[in-house]
Amino acid sequence: MSDRYAAHRKIARDLGVDAVALVPGPNFARLFNQNFHTSERPLAVLIPLEGAPAALVPNLELASFDLIGFEGEVFDWRDQQGYRDAFAALARHMPLKSLAVEGQVMRVFVHHALMAAYPGLRIIDAERQIAGLRLHKSPADIAALEAAIAISEKALAEVLGEIRVGMTEAEVESRLIRALFTHGAEEQAFGAIVAAGDNSGRPHAHARAEYAIRAGDALLLDFGARKAGFCADITRTVFMGHADDEARAVYDTVLRANLAGHGATRAGVSAHDVDDAVISVLEASPFADRIRTKTGHGLGRDVHEAPYIMRGNHQVLEPGMVFTNEPGLYRIGGFGVRIEDDILVTRTGCRSLTTFPKSLTVIG
Amino acid sequence: MSDRYAAHRKIARDLGVDAVALVPGPNFARLFNQNFHTSERPLAVLIPLEGAPAALVPNLELASFDLIGFEGEVFDWRDQQGYRDAFAALARHMPLKSLAVEGQVMRVFVHHALMAAYPGLRIIDAERQIAGLRLHKSPADIAALEAAIAISEKALAEVLGEIRVGMTEAEVESRLIRALFTHGAEEQAFGAIVAAGDNSGRPHAHARAEYAIRAGDALLLDFGARKAGFCADITRTVFMGHADDEARAVYDTVLRANLAGHGATRAGVSAHDVDDAVISVLEASPFADRIRTKTGHGLGRDVHEAPYIMRGNHQVLEPGMVFTNEPGLYRIGGFGVRIEDDILVTRTGCRSLTTFPKSLTVIG
Repeated sequence: MSDRYAAHRKIARDLGVDAVALVPGPNFARLFNQNFHTSERPLAVLIPLEGAPAALVPNLELASFDLIGFEGEVFDWRDQQGYRDAFAALARHMPLKSLAVEGQVMRVFVHHALMAAYPGLRIIDAERQIAGLRLHKSPADIAALEAAIAISEKALAEVLGEIRVGMTEAEVESRLIRALFTHGAEEQAFGAIVAAGDNSGRPHAHARAEYAIRAGDALLLDFGARKAGFCADITRTVFMGHADDEARAVYDTVLRANLAGHGATRAGVSAHDVDDAVISVLEASPFADRIRTKTGHGLGRDVHEAPYIMRGNHQVLEPGMVFTNEPGLYRIGGFGVRIEDDILVTRTGCRSLTTFPKSLTVIG
Repeated sequence: MSDRYAAHRKIARDLGVDAVALVPGPNFARLFNQNFHTSERPLAVLIPLEGAPAALVPNLELASFDLIGFEGEVFDWRDQQGYRDAFAALARHMPLKSLAVEGQVMRVFVHHALMAAYPGLRIIDAERQIAGLRLHKSPADIAALEAAIAISEKALAEVLGEIRVGMTEAEVESRLIRALFTHGAEEQAFGAIVAAGDNSGRPHAHARAEYAIRAGDALLLDFGARKAGFCADITRTVFMGHADDEARAVYDTVLRANLAGHGATRAGVSAHDVDDAVISVLEASPFADRIRTKTGHGLGRDVHEAPYIMRGNHQVLEPGMVFTNEPGLYRIGGFGVRIEDDILVTRTGCRSLTTFPKSLTVIG
């Protein structure tokens, strides 16, 4: 019988630590095909170099935890007693001197609870290695990504047909979210960004309930559905009523950068190379001072994961990796344009999982 | 001019540390009336005992960060260069030997980045103190909570009228979420729980796409809107087609426990006392072995926050505190019932912000 913890044990071995800890989140979900709320209640699984794993589980989650077919001891705790004794019992059961954790998922209070139960424990951040197990998407993973993207594109097409000058950003956001769920989203992959006019100049703007969209505004929509645990992440920028010369020139530049990213992607090139191809287009334009971000990030169970597509990251792309190609130009106090596709690395190039049209679009 | 950091400086002084760190999340949102995505990009504000604060901000967020009217130095960093140098510059600018952090919000990689920039830094978990600044809700906070609850109750009323035997849990969940946004939610306050039959026996179940709701099932709906940054959290359990004797007896027990919680709540009693009143009703019933959870948790910008309503927590309740009163009974492999209200502590008692009917309801 195969050991579903083999890859985690190898990480521990390679890092020279005694065990790997997982908490609810994308790595946990991949391993157990089940997830748990992140709350004030710690839940953790410890996977040692050899032998059975062990878990610390809030009592109220036991009936859900049963679904994962866990092979090891479970130390549960009830709200009224707190979790300190359960951590101590876990530490007696599985003595450890060192532990690899997911640095971008585990919160400090769990870190402190581990340190209290295991005095002198050496905790190392193995985010890269643990999340690295999700780098290569299986055919089933890709099908889930495609399903999430299909939902997102249907929602976008529907909502673009409804937007009118005078609607607020918040109203457009609400319509977009409802459309995501109408078309089958399980959740939003992340909080949608709907930003018009000067707000589009902020890469991660929040929709305003008080700003009515005006003729001539750029309107940036960045959003995605989650389906079967996988995230879509798509951005399109459209123009309301008309697009002036600056808008057209900026849009054209961003689109050329996006296409350069598609063109530069294939197995064997590095994340650095792709970012370089994309950013070089932006740098060669009159709008270089509006560059704010890297080209993109990996996409899967987490909406931001490896590979990070940026200069200085010499990670080599391999078939099955999926990332966002999302160049943008942002003028503070002015407007912004971003065009974002989700692309799959193949042996000879890439396949864009997003297929929504990218030519300059004027609506409303 | 008043110092908006006075309370944070007092926490640092009381704890004998040099500064308080805030990262995006509910405490950050309360202070700055603005929030940021939690991602692979660290963003942190350091508030020292005296003098101006300082911040570490991803370059792409600068135009959003401008909106908070920050008074101190900002150390920004770009994706391609990473954040290590910015942390080092921050450390040169604001030397620290000790720091209080939000243990349930800050993730381990930020903790590690701080330790790298400040060798020997003593980091203490001040979650209780920092989140404690959100314990007392202002009239504006309560209005936002009421708005979130009103949206949630409208959505529930609408969806209860639509549910039929044969629908899947996932279909009901999707309808509920769409109704939340139709009625004005900004976001879901948390991932909704829609659980029928045996799944209702799991306090935090996930809706199944493959389980069609049957006649006789208990159907538990636990969900809430977020509005103006504040969370609703409401649970009702209904029965499909009919409720048998066991269902009625369990429901009656949970309802009596819920009412006992309302009756026990007033300024001056402790969280322990309220939980004791609630749990005692459950313990005195024939269903004591189905108790899984404490009575409830505080509710505000975070869906789980202080005060935690549980035995052993001798925190005294004060006017303006808001918490959930959500007793439940859960039989593994059987069914569960939970009834959850959001209640506001007043000088003489409490006011239930949730007003949705609680009498046993048979639908479909």
